[in-house]
Amino acid sequence: MKVGIINVTGYTGVELARLLYQHPEVKLTSVTGRSAAGQKLGAVFPHLAGLELTISAELGDVELVFSAMPHKESAKEVIPLLGKGIKVVDISADFRLKDSSQYKQWYGFTHPAPRLLGEAVYGLTELYRAKIASSQLVANPGCYPTGAILALAPAVKAEIIEPDIIIDSKSGVSGAGRSLNLQTHFSEANEDVSAYALEGHRHLPEITQELKLLSGEKSLAVSFVPHLVPMTRGILTTCYAPLVSGKKEKQLKELYLDFYKDEPFVRVVDFPPHTKHTLGSNFCLIYPTVDQRAGKLIVISVIDNLVKGGSGQAVQNMNLMLGLPETTGLGAPAIYP
Amino acid sequence: MKVGIINVTGYTGVELARLLYQHPEVKLTSVTGRSAAGQKLGAVFPHLAGLELTISAELGDVELVFSAMPHKESAKEVIPLLGKGIKVVDISADFRLKDSSQYKQWYGFTHPAPRLLGEAVYGLTELYRAKIASSQLVANPGCYPTGAILALAPAVKAEIIEPDIIIDSKSGVSGAGRSLNLQTHFSEANEDVSAYALEGHRHLPEITQELKLLSGEKSLAVSFVPHLVPMTRGILTTCYAPLVSGKKEKQLKELYLDFYKDEPFVRVVDFPPHTKHTLGSNFCLIYPTVDQRAGKLIVISVIDNLVKGGSGQAVQNMNLMLGLPETTGLGAPAIYP
Amino acid sequence: MKVGIINVTGYTGVELARLLYQHPEVKLTSVTGRSAAGQKLGAVFPHLAGLELTISAELGDVELVFSAMPHKESAKEVIPLLGKGIKVVDISADFRLKDSSQYKQWYGFTHPAPRLLGEAVYGLTELYRAKIASSQLVANPGCYPTGAILALAPAVKAEIIEPDIIIDSKSGVSGAGRSLNLQTHFSEANEDVSAYALEGHRHLPEITQELKLLSGEKSLAVSFVPHLVPMTRGILTTCYAPLVSGKKEKQLKELYLDFYKDEPFVRVVDFPPHTKHTLGSNFCLIYPTVDQRAGKLIVISVIDNLVKGGSGQAVQNMNLMLGLPETTGLGAPAIYP
Amino acid sequence: MKVGIINVTGYTGVELARLLYQHPEVKLTSVTGRSAAGQKLGAVFPHLAGLELTISAELGDVELVFSAMPHKESAKEVIPLLGKGIKVVDISADFRLKDSSQYKQWYGFTHPAPRLLGEAVYGLTELYRAKIASSQLVANPGCYPTGAILALAPAVKAEIIEPDIIIDSKSGVSGAGRSLNLQTHFSEANEDVSAYALEGHRHLPEITQELKLLSGEKSLAVSFVPHLVPMTRGILTTCYAPLVSGKKEKQLKELYLDFYKDEPFVRVVDFPPHTKHTLGSNFCLIYPTVDQRAGKLIVISVIDNLVKGGSGQAVQNMNLMLGLPETTGLGAPAIYP
Repeated sequence: MKVGIINVTGYTGVELARLLYQHPEVKLTSVTGRSAAGQKLGAVFPHLAGLELTISAELGDVELVFSAMPHKESAKEVIPLLGKGIKVVDISADFRLKDSSQYKQWYGFTHPAPRLLGEAVYGLTELYRAKIASSQLVANPGCYPTGAILALAPAVKAEIIEPDIIIDSKSGVSGAGRSLNLQTHFSEANEDVSAYALEGHRHLPEITQELKLLSGEKSLAVSFVPHLVPMTRGILTTCYAPLVSGKKEKQLKELYLDFYKDEPFVRVVDFPPHTKHTLGSNFCLIYPTVDQRAGKLIVISVIDNLVKGGSGQAVQNMNLMLGLPETTGLGAPAIYP
Repeated sequence: MKVGIINVTGYTGVELARLLYQHPEVKLTSVTGRSAAGQKLGAVFPHLAGLELTISAELGDVELVFSAMPHKESAKEVIPLLGKGIKVVDISADFRLKDSSQYKQWYGFTHPAPRLLGEAVYGLTELYRAKIASSQLVANPGCYPTGAILALAPAVKAEIIEPDIIIDSKSGVSGAGRSLNLQTHFSEANEDVSAYALEGHRHLPEITQELKLLSGEKSLAVSFVPHLVPMTRGILTTCYAPLVSGKKEKQLKELYLDFYKDEPFVRVVDFPPHTKHTLGSNFCLIYPTVDQRAGKLIVISVIDNLVKGGSGQAVQNMNLMLGLPETTGLGAPAIYP
Repeated sequence: MKVGIINVTGYTGVELARLLYQHPEVKLTSVTGRSAAGQKLGAVFPHLAGLELTISAELGDVELVFSAMPHKESAKEVIPLLGKGIKVVDISADFRLKDSSQYKQWYGFTHPAPRLLGEAVYGLTELYRAKIASSQLVANPGCYPTGAILALAPAVKAEIIEPDIIIDSKSGVSGAGRSLNLQTHFSEANEDVSAYALEGHRHLPEITQELKLLSGEKSLAVSFVPHLVPMTRGILTTCYAPLVSGKKEKQLKELYLDFYKDEPFVRVVDFPPHTKHTLGSNFCLIYPTVDQRAGKLIVISVIDNLVKGGSGQAVQNMNLMLGLPETTGLGAPAIYP
Repeated sequence: MKVGIINVTGYTGVELARLLYQHPEVKLTSVTGRSAAGQKLGAVFPHLAGLELTISAELGDVELVFSAMPHKESAKEVIPLLGKGIKVVDISADFRLKDSSQYKQWYGFTHPAPRLLGEAVYGLTELYRAKIASSQLVANPGCYPTGAILALAPAVKAEIIEPDIIIDSKSGVSGAGRSLNLQTHFSEANEDVSAYALEGHRHLPEITQELKLLSGEKSLAVSFVPHLVPMTRGILTTCYAPLVSGKKEKQLKELYLDFYKDEPFVRVVDFPPHTKHTLGSNFCLIYPTVDQRAGKLIVISVIDNLVKGGSGQAVQNMNLMLGLPETTGLGAPAIYP
């Protein structure tokens, strides 16, 4: 089976190429990239010199395509492909939100195909596995929403917390992409921690949408503050919410273990996990605990933002869409130390 | 005026030596350290080679002493000095908590001089300036409490938030000290973020004590989760609390500006601050904002954990105790980038 | 085929476990470790939780074993295994040097089995492929020698340089192992570069031995200075030597391309390579160039010190010893960024 | 005395502002910057909020000015100032080289005022102290040349080495400036080491010129390879040269100690120094040693590239030019850890 990547030159695109290079059942045959068209992939990305591919301006003949275009641009690329019957995993935000008016509010553009928002499946594999398998268009989640929703889903679904949630995320710098920016200039980001997007990060509506769907559409207050920390990969998310009275640590643990018992890539752990435990892998580690003094649920999750928080999850979704075992090509453990 | 440092060989001790080296009004004449006794200070710490001092086993004749001993050990050193009329800034936790029973609970030892807990002044300069100036014993705050209390004090005091606070702190690794530990081994801590002490960090009772004093002894729920991030210095603290209805962003800003209007080392800023803005300096930058969607106050503070969060604040307190201008020797701006 | 690891708890041991976990033809069935005996491997190393193994005190029944013991200790473990017919890849230095007197000089112990030094094959796969395939005991090279010898072998063998070589290496901190040490304490090693072992690093006799063998046992002056840089993985080695007159850049490039033309893991490249191009992979990238002004050959090589510089090369050697294709289980490209 | 900075917005410019802020004898009254003109300095650089200055398009009335413009642009700014009798410390390369033809070769432009190259004094304070004190135009050295020349000067001058030198430098990323670049993007530079400018770095002619002047204009072969390491500040330089026979370690040490015996900012040390020993300070630490096996001199130097390697040395030169004690305002020890 042939697959392609639109815009291979960003970090998500090139990470897809790395994962597909090792995939035993599909073949990456076409990669596009505007600025680098005509160059060998291995000339731009020496770690992929083994992959004999030239970056082209136009997508070749493929069965499934990943779009790693920026938002707004991605929809333009994806819509014609759908008409040709090509399966699409869209890494951008363009099909994640169900309510088209939110694109105006959060992304500043009028969505070109609101009807498709109803057809697209939100690609958080653990929540929508069956739908993904039969979908033509999967909207791959953002990196922050992946960590946050996986951390909170069991508690929200079981209604053991009040609908008043705080999500404090710490992300490696690669989440900000490969485009140059003073914030991600080495001498600025190194030896530094900062919060950003306090006026409202674009991943917030995505998180709220999914948590509401899990809890049955109730009103839900979510404060989300992302932070940049001086490392390349990884997101650690710390979630806080008032516990509905009476829940014990042990019950909480069982609830989480049960919720994720059949998941190949989610592990509920007994210790506060480190982002390093997931570096380069598709795993999400989750640690739920109770702050008895304050009556709060605290849940910590860790992922590699470019793998489970991006390209790895995209491959996981691709596997389902192509009828392959979900874990195909994604078995590598994390790199440690 | 002669001053001394007990246990100069930890990071707080050696940072004190750096700051005192540049201090125009006092002279560091005696430094002790068990393992390194007999060595030149500059042989152990080459950056201080200009300071002609030998590490000794016993403290010399000084007017004021800083104890940078670990908790439990520090009280043993400090108590006899007080009897001799020497002024003491204790960097350890041994005199920070008013309720002696908390030492049993949080530090696992019976406090040897509970009476002194009533006499010691908590050395958060911005809150206790006058008392510090006339005190013989100042209990220098912990690094996390400094960032958290300064961030929350104006809001707690003005009663604009519900007594239900979340404090999520991100600390550089030097906060864990100079003692060797797998958690702070370079290859483990680099490219990693983790949360720790979820069962209750020792700085929690200190934070709670001070916030209660500010708010008038009400019940107060505080969840505090510290995180380790891969940098050497700096703490960024993100605080969340429900806003009592009706408070606007502008009023909030004015409240904070007014609270800190005469403070030489606290700056209320218009942008989310970076820890790098304080590296090596005694400043604390604070950014208060409102999450209108969730009805929450969010406050972010940044400090250098070893300066305002430790040795710099200790020198600030010393200045007051010796009748010197509070800012003496502490004017250096941060190192950037 | 069953394989085992002696001392799985160091960075080389645990990296072997990661690589063998993904290996399709052998099964890791036994791992030992003194301090952690009785614990699940996944409890000590969460990234390997998928590997259902318990760390034991004694090695189980295996066909081939990797010894990741420290030098001097390793020989004691390895010698009895050889007697039982078990194949051994020794990661330590205990069988790398041909001249037993050098163990006294460089490692401070009398070698317990000098006869085996003649039988052991130096496991730099690119130089000794055939011998490794038929050997029972392979002495896996050190991380620095791997980068240095691969960089210099074509030039030394072709006699295009004078026997007067400078090797300046820059290593990530994981090369110093998992044992705690002030030099590798995060706050000391972060934001720092330093040189060490200027009096003579233990990898020097190994480098000199192999370069002499390549050049035909002539006298050879080698200065080797290793440096610690603040990253976890990777070694960049910069080699300098006077060029025998008349060699041109183009001829040099052809010489290197030809020398490594059939090598699956060595790539001669057209640009100064980055350690990041090899992170987590078994590749070595080599860039030879000429400093025309000074009449010098300059060669730069990069490896991941724990993979090609350690455990990856050990698996490469194991593949040969077991009659498997050399690249089996080692195809993963580097993690980027 | 009033001083000014042309182009305050780069790392050298802003570091000058930090140092001058603390200077007791001069007052920084004018700072220019094209893109940021009209903004408060503290709005662009929050660590300097205490410095009440607005960035302007035009320089105000000052006695001495620092030009932190890029090469070629700097000469244009500096030449008219000289005519007005203003003293100038030029941080750029525009007046460092004595031979005007080298500007064509290395910097690609025809020098606009070759006559001034004879008048300008090369601002390596330790070598040209007297000339600097009476000069109107000082050409502040590059960061690499400062570390390399200080490391080699005693040996070159005493003619104890052959004129065949290798200089291998490891620099923090701030040396590459504040302009955005993929090489200095955090996710690219973090966890990475690379060599660059192997075809000839622009600091090479400057190093060669000064070493020739020291040795008496003999022919001199210098290979210089700079490397980028993942830290913000610091340069460690490792120099290698063949020793003229008969020199002993002890004599070498004495030679260096004697050469630098009166220097306030150069320390000859007994151990391999770390860049961290100089972070934020104007010190240069030098460690000379002998590789007896290879008959080589090895010298290691460390500096903070932005202080002794740039703005600190510029202030040191300013002090001399204004008749102030050379160390004024530069006494701060390094920040450690």
